[in-house]
Amino acid sequence: MKPVNHITLRKNLTVNALVNEMSKSGVLGAGALAKAVDIFEEMHNDKDCKIFMGIAGAMVPGGMKNIIHEILREKMIDVLVITGANLTHDMIEALGHRHFQGSHMADDNELNKKGLNRIYDSYMPNKSYEDLEDFFSRNYDKLKSIKSVNELLWKIGELTPNDSILKLCWQNKIPVFCPALGDSGIGLMFWGLLAKGKSLDVKAFEDLKEIIDIAWTAKKAGVIYIGGGTPKNYIQQAMQLSPHKASYGIQITMDRPEPGGSSGAELKEGISWGKLERNAKFVNLICDATIAMPIIFSAVKDRV
Amino acid sequence: MKPVNHITLRKNLTVNALVNEMSKSGVLGAGALAKAVDIFEEMHNDKDCKIFMGIAGAMVPGGMKNIIHEILREKMIDVLVITGANLTHDMIEALGHRHFQGSHMADDNELNKKGLNRIYDSYMPNKSYEDLEDFFSRNYDKLKSIKSVNELLWKIGELTPNDSILKLCWQNKIPVFCPALGDSGIGLMFWGLLAKGKSLDVKAFEDLKEIIDIAWTAKKAGVIYIGGGTPKNYIQQAMQLSPHKASYGIQITMDRPEPGGSSGAELKEGISWGKLERNAKFVNLICDATIAMPIIFSAVKDRV
Amino acid sequence: MKPVNHITLRKNLTVNALVNEMSKSGVLGAGALAKAVDIFEEMHNDKDCKIFMGIAGAMVPGGMKNIIHEILREKMIDVLVITGANLTHDMIEALGHRHFQGSHMADDNELNKKGLNRIYDSYMPNKSYEDLEDFFSRNYDKLKSIKSVNELLWKIGELTPNDSILKLCWQNKIPVFCPALGDSGIGLMFWGLLAKGKSLDVKAFEDLKEIIDIAWTAKKAGVIYIGGGTPKNYIQQAMQLSPHKASYGIQITMDRPEPGGSSGAELKEGISWGKLERNAKFVNLICDATIAMPIIFSAVKDRV
Amino acid sequence: MKPVNHITLRKNLTVNALVNEMSKSGVLGAGALAKAVDIFEEMHNDKDCKIFMGIAGAMVPGGMKNIIHEILREKMIDVLVITGANLTHDMIEALGHRHFQGSHMADDNELNKKGLNRIYDSYMPNKSYEDLEDFFSRNYDKLKSIKSVNELLWKIGELTPNDSILKLCWQNKIPVFCPALGDSGIGLMFWGLLAKGKSLDVKAFEDLKEIIDIAWTAKKAGVIYIGGGTPKNYIQQAMQLSPHKASYGIQITMDRPEPGGSSGAELKEGISWGKLERNAKFVNLICDATIAMPIIFSAVKDRV
Repeated sequence: MKPVNHITLRKNLTVNALVNEMSKSGVLGAGALAKAVDIFEEMHNDKDCKIFMGIAGAMVPGGMKNIIHEILREKMIDVLVITGANLTHDMIEALGHRHFQGSHMADDNELNKKGLNRIYDSYMPNKSYEDLEDFFSRNYDKLKSIKSVNELLWKIGELTPNDSILKLCWQNKIPVFCPALGDSGIGLMFWGLLAKGKSLDVKAFEDLKEIIDIAWTAKKAGVIYIGGGTPKNYIQQAMQLSPHKASYGIQITMDRPEPGGSSGAELKEGISWGKLERNAKFVNLICDATIAMPIIFSAVKDRV
Repeated sequence: MKPVNHITLRKNLTVNALVNEMSKSGVLGAGALAKAVDIFEEMHNDKDCKIFMGIAGAMVPGGMKNIIHEILREKMIDVLVITGANLTHDMIEALGHRHFQGSHMADDNELNKKGLNRIYDSYMPNKSYEDLEDFFSRNYDKLKSIKSVNELLWKIGELTPNDSILKLCWQNKIPVFCPALGDSGIGLMFWGLLAKGKSLDVKAFEDLKEIIDIAWTAKKAGVIYIGGGTPKNYIQQAMQLSPHKASYGIQITMDRPEPGGSSGAELKEGISWGKLERNAKFVNLICDATIAMPIIFSAVKDRV
Repeated sequence: MKPVNHITLRKNLTVNALVNEMSKSGVLGAGALAKAVDIFEEMHNDKDCKIFMGIAGAMVPGGMKNIIHEILREKMIDVLVITGANLTHDMIEALGHRHFQGSHMADDNELNKKGLNRIYDSYMPNKSYEDLEDFFSRNYDKLKSIKSVNELLWKIGELTPNDSILKLCWQNKIPVFCPALGDSGIGLMFWGLLAKGKSLDVKAFEDLKEIIDIAWTAKKAGVIYIGGGTPKNYIQQAMQLSPHKASYGIQITMDRPEPGGSSGAELKEGISWGKLERNAKFVNLICDATIAMPIIFSAVKDRV
Repeated sequence: MKPVNHITLRKNLTVNALVNEMSKSGVLGAGALAKAVDIFEEMHNDKDCKIFMGIAGAMVPGGMKNIIHEILREKMIDVLVITGANLTHDMIEALGHRHFQGSHMADDNELNKKGLNRIYDSYMPNKSYEDLEDFFSRNYDKLKSIKSVNELLWKIGELTPNDSILKLCWQNKIPVFCPALGDSGIGLMFWGLLAKGKSLDVKAFEDLKEIIDIAWTAKKAGVIYIGGGTPKNYIQQAMQLSPHKASYGIQITMDRPEPGGSSGAELKEGISWGKLERNAKFVNLICDATIAMPIIFSAVKDRV
């Protein structure tokens, strides 16, 4: 048995050095956080391993945009599955808008009058939507004949004027999926086109062919879930259909397992389903992702 | 100010009588649970109010199937938005299979060898999928030309041999939506058809027209969210686009608001977005839905 | 394997009948709630079993007073360990004051000006303390020479004019402990006496002799924890020192196990410590206690 | 309004630099973490401010010992209130024993056979207790006449052979309190002495005089709570009795506010009670303390 080596601080400690201290303590949240870094490093260095990343929750309004962009720019992952909400917030920033620091105790009536939409303690101005509508109207002709959601997302990326999640996916040829794109601000833009009588060819299930092909042909797979939601489940079901289950797993969530939902389910449950290898290296980190992501990827940056 | 009247038990207390006691105490979880019943009763009795229900989490493997079926049979709601996972588990039971009582501490390796998929402490046998595949193969011709996910869901309901969520929605003409159907066992059945070269016409965003039309034309709206996920968000965005925001709101979840995700966000946040009326009656109930649903709908049954 | 039998509602369902339905479903929170009732019934019927109950959290301001009183009146437990806060709130009501229904979103500045102390969404008026001070001043002579906290608590009970937790413990000879009595409003009353130069004989560790004697001489033990805190840990350590570990265990809390604290620790952890029998019947129920307690004790009432 | 400035990583980022990035993002968990550092820095630099720190949860088995020791060695706080469990684990290490890295999925029966006590995923060997017993037997004469728990704790510190929380408190004249010392392994040592017929003079409420005196005479107060439990509540009630309420507040917990318990209650609730100044600077950080503490005190180290 390894003893718990107490974390020791010193001046000018780097994040990676702190994570190394946490690794030596090896228990509770700090131990799990360090293990997440170790597993990410190991799957990154495993040349046979395709890394599938799922991102849910308020990551873009929560200040994680640059980290996600860098992950894509540096091709640290092979497949991205993300919620429509994050894509919407990211597009809005790519079109020149910002999110703002607020308070979760604000008067929501007052915010509504001021045209501010609250996401816990960050605000998104209502007027951000206008440029988004304009973007989709302007580019309708280039989008209308696309058949699958994943191709649609790359095309949106190609058309986006500034760095965005989708643009970086497109530039770096990282397949990107959004299992419930209709359930988001971007989805509403497509509804807006349909409501004006403009047709769209994009099909409901075409994207499944692509992600399952990728999972099927991967020699090895690793998964990292920031939050749960559809991104986690969508990757998990691709793992289930693949001959090679995930060999590495990292899950960061504040959701509990006891209510039985997919988001809070511990990774080891996936072993029963054949989504995770019996001998996989995995960790469930119970932590606010806006704390965990910067630490993990800061440490990873120093290591790889 | 009303005093906290302590809950008093007696022999043969009915669930509704207990909820009335909780209403008199009026605080903490018990108070919120009683308020949920009161709000549901009030929106049920409000003839102008269309009730939108969102269901996420492991409700069917969690023993809530009959309650959901009865809600639909009795037309207690006007619109259902639900996860593909619940539809899959429900279809599997409609085709003659069962879920089983297990343990969250089971050895997942052993379960995998036995062909049992674990959902916290319930198990779904692997072989349940076979009849599901057969159902979709057999009915392909009746599904292939359908354009929207909501029509597809009604058609699946019509074709299902026994009572199921979808069959009851179809029979009772309750519009039913599933914003991420591809992200589920049923979604995988459609992938299976596509993978065999069979085409499907169903489009990605067509369903949005239907739900937004319903929200738009409702004189008044009430929302009830069992869990968060895409069902909550999908209804919330329909509320946002509608001239009549929700006047009533009930949310039952174990997710926290602090990480900023939609599932755990308190209902009052929706006021800033224009999804909830400024003077709406609403309650956030922090409770395992498998405890809250039976109590709420048992009490509602005695009241309406 | 037992199938998940879906919960079926009917008109005028009693709480106990609903719990029986939950027992047949057997999974997730509903299954755990039903199991808690079954275990309580079984330990109640086991004549050799001494039941140790720990109560933490805002149970008295939360409307649970009558249920706790009835448990004591009916001698459904053999030992009570409780927080000083609950004793304080209960004493205040025994002296004629009330708690009030409020809102967790209230302006705390305003409440402070009005002399209202907030406990989430219940309020305790500041003036309640005055009668409490008067009670302890008046009865100082009868308390000053008592040596152990448990005897002190019984004496306070004897002196209390109306039904209270302590009076009912005293009347029914139920030993009652409060491991951190100083950390409460009642503790502050004793500080007030000391500050006025009045001496008190009560010792810090005398109560340990009593609870460990009870645990040591019990043929069998059962534990039920409403919340964690010192009541849980204090009973757990008595179990650890006893030759007969707990044979039955019920824990109701919203705290998580992952941070490692005693309050959220799963009961099974106690097996490693020798606090719980290897073959004990036990359940961890993740639920707001103000919801779980009324249901459990309502069902128990119909069964015993 | 300040925009959310997205966190940007770079090579060799120090923890403090990362916290500065989090401060610029300003929202969700990362924003709260950064605010905790800012508030600690500010109260540290406020020469009139006495800092009261409460520590609960499995901080010593969780690898936080050195950080706590350094806080005391550097006199970064003025008063410590801590659980008996942490003092016990710390004493055991001071007497030469260790805690070990384990797994929360271990078989607790097997651990029990091996004499390993589990604290989530760390283990404490049973035999650690033997030296603790020996220490208290050997030093009984020096402890038996002490009247208050706080003096008892300093004396234990004085007698401890190696660095420990209590020794460092004693050396640096930092008052240290433990409101439920009986409810811990150290408490059991005193029970052991009593059980052998050895008397102890320590009184139950004497310590209250000391902490309330300190709070009363402080020109200004700041509070930092690692976990809740008795340490938080004990400091809070001292604040309530003091003419100067807390001007600064930091709370780190994973407990929820909704069940109404003191541990999870948001700091702002304290404003209603007169425990926190109306204009206090405060933050509730929802995070595993083993992650938050190292980050906060690493950043603080670089700043002060």
